[in-house]
Amino acid sequence: MRVVVLRIGHRIPRDERVTTHVCLTARALGADGVIISNVRDSQLAETVNSVTKRFGGSFHVETGKSWRSTITEWKQGGGKVVHLTAYGIPLPKKVEDILRSKEDKLIVVGAEKVPGEMYSLADWNIAVTNQPISEVSALGVFLDWLFEHKRLEGEFANAKMRIIPTEHGKTVETI
Amino acid sequence: MRVVVLRIGHRIPRDERVTTHVCLTARALGADGVIISNVRDSQLAETVNSVTKRFGGSFHVETGKSWRSTITEWKQGGGKVVHLTAYGIPLPKKVEDILRSKEDKLIVVGAEKVPGEMYSLADWNIAVTNQPISEVSALGVFLDWLFEHKRLEGEFANAKMRIIPTEHGKTVETI
Repeated sequence: MRVVVLRIGHRIPRDERVTTHVCLTARALGADGVIISNVRDSQLAETVNSVTKRFGGSFHVETGKSWRSTITEWKQGGGKVVHLTAYGIPLPKKVEDILRSKEDKLIVVGAEKVPGEMYSLADWNIAVTNQPISEVSALGVFLDWLFEHKRLEGEFANAKMRIIPTEHGKTVETI
Repeated sequence: MRVVVLRIGHRIPRDERVTTHVCLTARALGADGVIISNVRDSQLAETVNSVTKRFGGSFHVETGKSWRSTITEWKQGGGKVVHLTAYGIPLPKKVEDILRSKEDKLIVVGAEKVPGEMYSLADWNIAVTNQPISEVSALGVFLDWLFEHKRLEGEFANAKMRIIPTEHGKTVETI
């Protein structure tokens, strides 16, 4: 199953940092890549790619692609679309349905305003709490559930740097 | 068990949005309050308090308190300190220890630079992946595990507005 995050509504410079948090969260918690829709942002791509180069894996970043055509193509390819929104159905009520479906997953996270159309295009509108929350933590919690709480210790291939878990301190190994 | 989040290294205006995401995540996922250390930020407190006023609960925000004395007082009161850091021990390896301890928990999340002392002051340095990640998603995933994945459907007392979970759309009820 391929898992890609679609970030919609990214604005430069306003969302630079939050979108970077979205990308790092997606990578760390096991997504295959991220698409930043409608806006080209080579600086953001560079920041995230430099993390991947150092810490490994094959996380890909694409920017500037239309969100509508991204979703249309995804569905034409047989994939499913999960939109994370506080207005949706609580994750615990839908997690079994989602885990039963073996299709590729496109996980959509918006910035402040999400086009109304998104709610009908999504196969699932899922709430990580029906409360005002951050799309960054909603994505983190969702991916953790999607991978059944088993991706917190993943190793990344081809890493040049690796953090060695330490009780009280910081240890980084250069490979 | 009381759970409070301590945000250290907050800078105005650079961290305004990310710290707001930290606060909303803490509230939505069941923490009792947040302390923003060393910097007074009444605007941030107002933003978060206005969410609580509308969506309920008794989440409290305190800003400008020294992080060192916050930790010292917390420990003197018998509470435990969990510092979330990519350098720490993976959460799955420590979650049982943490759940066994019934003491109040202070969950520390830093901005970019965390004072070295923090690593020795914490009872646990915990990694939500040993990868570069966002403190917002690290906090979200950690709180979800701390509450044993049972707080995603919590109701908040005294809410004036409530989101009604909807398959495809947005429904908000004014109470």
